[in-house]
Amino acid sequence: MTEIKRIAVFCGSSTGTGEVFMKSAALLGQEMVRRKIKLVYGGGSVGLMGQIAKTVAEGLGEDAVLGVITEDLAPREISGAPHGEVKVVPDMHTRKAVMAQNADAFVALPGGYGTLEEVMEMITWQQLGIHAKPVGFLNVNGLYTKLLSFFDDIVSAGFVSAPRRAIAQSDTDAAALIDKLIAYQAPDNIIKLAKEGKLDQARG
Amino acid sequence: MTEIKRIAVFCGSSTGTGEVFMKSAALLGQEMVRRKIKLVYGGGSVGLMGQIAKTVAEGLGEDAVLGVITEDLAPREISGAPHGEVKVVPDMHTRKAVMAQNADAFVALPGGYGTLEEVMEMITWQQLGIHAKPVGFLNVNGLYTKLLSFFDDIVSAGFVSAPRRAIAQSDTDAAALIDKLIAYQAPDNIIKLAKEGKLDQARG
Ligand SMILES: [Mg+2]
Repeated sequence: MTEIKRIAVFCGSSTGTGEVFMKSAALLGQEMVRRKIKLVYGGGSVGLMGQIAKTVAEGLGEDAVLGVITEDLAPREISGAPHGEVKVVPDMHTRKAVMAQNADAFVALPGGYGTLEEVMEMITWQQLGIHAKPVGFLNVNGLYTKLLSFFDDIVSAGFVSAPRRAIAQSDTDAAALIDKLIAYQAPDNIIKLAKEGKLDQARG
Repeated sequence: MTEIKRIAVFCGSSTGTGEVFMKSAALLGQEMVRRKIKLVYGGGSVGLMGQIAKTVAEGLGEDAVLGVITEDLAPREISGAPHGEVKVVPDMHTRKAVMAQNADAFVALPGGYGTLEEVMEMITWQQLGIHAKPVGFLNVNGLYTKLLSFFDDIVSAGFVSAPRRAIAQSDTDAAALIDKLIAYQAPDNIIKLAKEGKLDQARG
């Protein structure tokens, strides 16, 4: 059982080609509002990033939204006034570490290479015992089905142990996904390592 | 056209469940030896990591192999004397940056979450203009087929632009993959950014 007060959401800074993608960001945001779960995210004001920030800010107030963006990306991903507090950090590594430190769980909404990289980093950090926080994919419109099936294949191929497959939770429904993240329990050896404060070290 | 003198290989530190996986590391290593391409890798002496290092060291000499491992992972992934020079670095982020600085191209052999995270980081760094070096998946036994198909899906869904899909090259054959990496040309704007020396900054 994990008490989730704030979720780090990774997602695209574009809208995607179907309404279903922007809608998924709104639905996740509404579920977070219903449960009074705050948001930490990539700090952009466009695409799915903008939608999740807007939804949580409107429901729980601007204080409930923390954006973390790099100096380089700020001009590209912020247009107009962003929601909540925006922290500008020097590089992508610091961005991920600050998001991880400020979150109790991680959710991937639809996104591109960058989104996959960010969520894979959180999965890998859990494998290494840097944190014991739950990680999940919101599988909107089947976008993550092939990736999740690839995860099953790397277990069958012997490159990920069967118990570690559970690090990557998923659901097609936002409420059901959050329930799974709350219920998730990291392996004991990971919890032990994570308590030694490795996430602070990861920040560098 | 990229002149490739050294390849960074990402792969599992286990052997996988089929002989085909260890064999793929040997075949890639042999192709590198044939072309006198040196190796930088994760520094482990076990699984596919050990196999690629052994093959390149036997073919081109110990000087042709550079391993980069973290203090934490060294006891887990090195058993016996590792091949070539082994650089011990403080954390995973430095490991990736040192590997990237020392390579002209990146290849993913079969691996688990960590391998996917490493290669996604190289893809993302190219998107950001941190480097303009080619990246490819050696698709052994169809292991990466679903992942590559997922990449096509995120292009269709509008989260990766069609020209950026080409950042992730792939082939089932090591020689054909290296030919594709040599032929690969990063987009002009990425080459321009990469020349400004962002990879040195990424090292932090
Ligand atoms: Mg990463």
